[in-house]
Amino acid sequence: MRVSQLFTKTLKDAPADEVAKNAQLLIRAGFVYKEMAGVYAYLPLGIKVLENIKQIVREEMDAIGSNELIMTTLQRRDVWEKTGRWNDDVVDVWFKTKLKDDTEVGLGWSHEEPIVEMLKQYVRSYKDLPISLYQFQPKMRNELRAKSGIMRGREFVMKDMYSFHTSAEELEVYYNKVIEAYKRVYDRLGIGNDTYVTFASGGAFTKFSHEFQTICEAGEDVIYLHREKNIAINEEVIDDAIKELGVSRDELEMVKTAESGNIFNFGAQKAEDMGLNFVSDDDKQHPVFMGSYGIGITRAMGVIAEKFSDEKGLVWPENIAPYKVYLVNIGNVDEQATELYEKLTSTGLTVLFDDRNERPGAKFADAELIGLPYRITISERLIEQGKLELTYRNSGETELLTLDELLAKIS
Amino acid sequence: MRVSQLFTKTLKDAPADEVAKNAQLLIRAGFVYKEMAGVYAYLPLGIKVLENIKQIVREEMDAIGSNELIMTTLQRRDVWEKTGRWNDDVVDVWFKTKLKDDTEVGLGWSHEEPIVEMLKQYVRSYKDLPISLYQFQPKMRNELRAKSGIMRGREFVMKDMYSFHTSAEELEVYYNKVIEAYKRVYDRLGIGNDTYVTFASGGAFTKFSHEFQTICEAGEDVIYLHREKNIAINEEVIDDAIKELGVSRDELEMVKTAESGNIFNFGAQKAEDMGLNFVSDDDKQHPVFMGSYGIGITRAMGVIAEKFSDEKGLVWPENIAPYKVYLVNIGNVDEQATELYEKLTSTGLTVLFDDRNERPGAKFADAELIGLPYRITISERLIEQGKLELTYRNSGETELLTLDELLAKIS
Repeated sequence: MRVSQLFTKTLKDAPADEVAKNAQLLIRAGFVYKEMAGVYAYLPLGIKVLENIKQIVREEMDAIGSNELIMTTLQRRDVWEKTGRWNDDVVDVWFKTKLKDDTEVGLGWSHEEPIVEMLKQYVRSYKDLPISLYQFQPKMRNELRAKSGIMRGREFVMKDMYSFHTSAEELEVYYNKVIEAYKRVYDRLGIGNDTYVTFASGGAFTKFSHEFQTICEAGEDVIYLHREKNIAINEEVIDDAIKELGVSRDELEMVKTAESGNIFNFGAQKAEDMGLNFVSDDDKQHPVFMGSYGIGITRAMGVIAEKFSDEKGLVWPENIAPYKVYLVNIGNVDEQATELYEKLTSTGLTVLFDDRNERPGAKFADAELIGLPYRITISERLIEQGKLELTYRNSGETELLTLDELLAKIS
Repeated sequence: MRVSQLFTKTLKDAPADEVAKNAQLLIRAGFVYKEMAGVYAYLPLGIKVLENIKQIVREEMDAIGSNELIMTTLQRRDVWEKTGRWNDDVVDVWFKTKLKDDTEVGLGWSHEEPIVEMLKQYVRSYKDLPISLYQFQPKMRNELRAKSGIMRGREFVMKDMYSFHTSAEELEVYYNKVIEAYKRVYDRLGIGNDTYVTFASGGAFTKFSHEFQTICEAGEDVIYLHREKNIAINEEVIDDAIKELGVSRDELEMVKTAESGNIFNFGAQKAEDMGLNFVSDDDKQHPVFMGSYGIGITRAMGVIAEKFSDEKGLVWPENIAPYKVYLVNIGNVDEQATELYEKLTSTGLTVLFDDRNERPGAKFADAELIGLPYRITISERLIEQGKLELTYRNSGETELLTLDELLAKIS
């Protein structure tokens, strides 16, 4: 991609009402556009980051046998009334609207109930289970405050997954598989070391549920952490968990975190409320056991923008950067730069080529704000030396290399 | 994918309130689930078809220099008020809802106004133009009636594209490029021969706009067609168009069609209403010229389901089928069938392997309902002969082939 063909421009300032660092940087660098508080469009650079994150999550969910589908934003009142969750006092983030005939419908903030309702069409026998389904779905939540940029959206993308089982034991096994899959996701996103499986307030049949909390100054949560024992506890269950886990409060470090994921054991409660049953080999009807597992895709992008950035701009981890290379030409070397651009691209590298007629300082500043892992500079002086300049965004270090040396380093 | 791991089952009947053939078939075969009238979830088989259609459209839009982004469903009232289109009497398909502080917001039924508003942040000079942007965005339209299955959704996926230019002439050139790109899309979707560029009621500065109408019994439109001259006219402009194009009504054939796409020349009207200007090389401010181009992705899937189906079920064109091959094992040949499944998959073929312990007739019936292009059957008798049975879904013809012969035919 050529920067001259990218319609976005880097901006000096984010909108005055934007207080979150992640959104300020992402807006200034041209990744997102703020439609209103908590509602962001994803521009060409931004959608590539989102798709890269989704693809990592997709591969890990597929690897544990889950199947992708896509449910709907418009939701039926009667489905949610079965569990009492249509009520605005029970769920305080509903957006609701009306069909032409005045039928009230909701906008999906989660999909447990609609998925269970749908499965009633397909699940008859124990032979139909287990089932695991996931989706990347734009969720709508009518948040009172939305001041954390893309980390808390009124409209945001979530990977939500639901699994269905014949027994509590089978669910437990899958639940633990999901924990391991989530760890692989956070590792691949580059936030594995700072993300902790955290005890949180429990589900229908379990003392605790689990959250994945990532250490992040801009996060809205607080956890209590025992780094050596790898124990993390959400504030809301601290007293219970201390007793249960045999740690003392003094040993625990209080850290600010963002919730990067959560997993929840519903037991058979949801199926009982909604009548999702299966016939087991004893020929009797039993309610299905259900788990629910979320990862906020846009939130993950926000957390990464918060954590991987410096005073100059964003610093994308290689796995999710929109392009690997920012190519800068200096001086009258258009032809050689274009040739290099094509050569790099032909090796499979993704390249953003800053072909604008701008002074080097402006191009370097944009390279740093946009934050691709590698900057490659080509100039008359460098061509004379038979070298290219490679600059690492994370360390700021620079090397002069031949093309072959450079490709060996970054391909 | 193994059928035993697909949570959907083929169903004898679609819901009683489902009157559209496309949705009846897609529901029965396990591609979609009806949430409510005009609102459908896309199950594992269905989402693959959608993604295949999107990928074809994506490639053709990228090829004419358009860039993908994703705008938002929640929309600001003030943005739409600038053109008068917030008014429910002007646009009668709005869904509206409210933020916690009672601010009214709309759910996106189209994105001209938000895109123009966003571009005001980026467009300054003629050097910033042209710009072309597209998205695959779930649109919300509060349709009074939604009885055409996935061909008319209250919630549906659209590819909407918007282009911005310094002059009417430049816009005209791009507009015609889009027409050619759309023709390539419909060709690749398998409906090119039945899709006509149709004169329809005009934009701000043009006598006619253009629709792409696909001959389809279940369509909601009617066009007047001169097949030899390749002229197609929408009912609403028939009198004007006859005069303009020099054809007589007698020569025209009336056919039922579905609108598969539309393109629209806004001239500079939208930019004037909303204040999207650029400074040209004469140092003066001018409004930007704009075009708008849509393809209904879910509608295209519906049209294809209507057109490519028979009394036994769906008949997917190869380009968009969720899998190419439906593999059926008969009798006690699990091991050989699994080996064949892995061999086929390793050559890059996508295979749905019906590994269920079902009688052959039930498997064959499901194969026909689901409608993948090729059915491959393996059985003890066939193994003895060193052959496999290949059945073409579209012709119903069957051949006995060795594995190598078979791969040569379908790879």
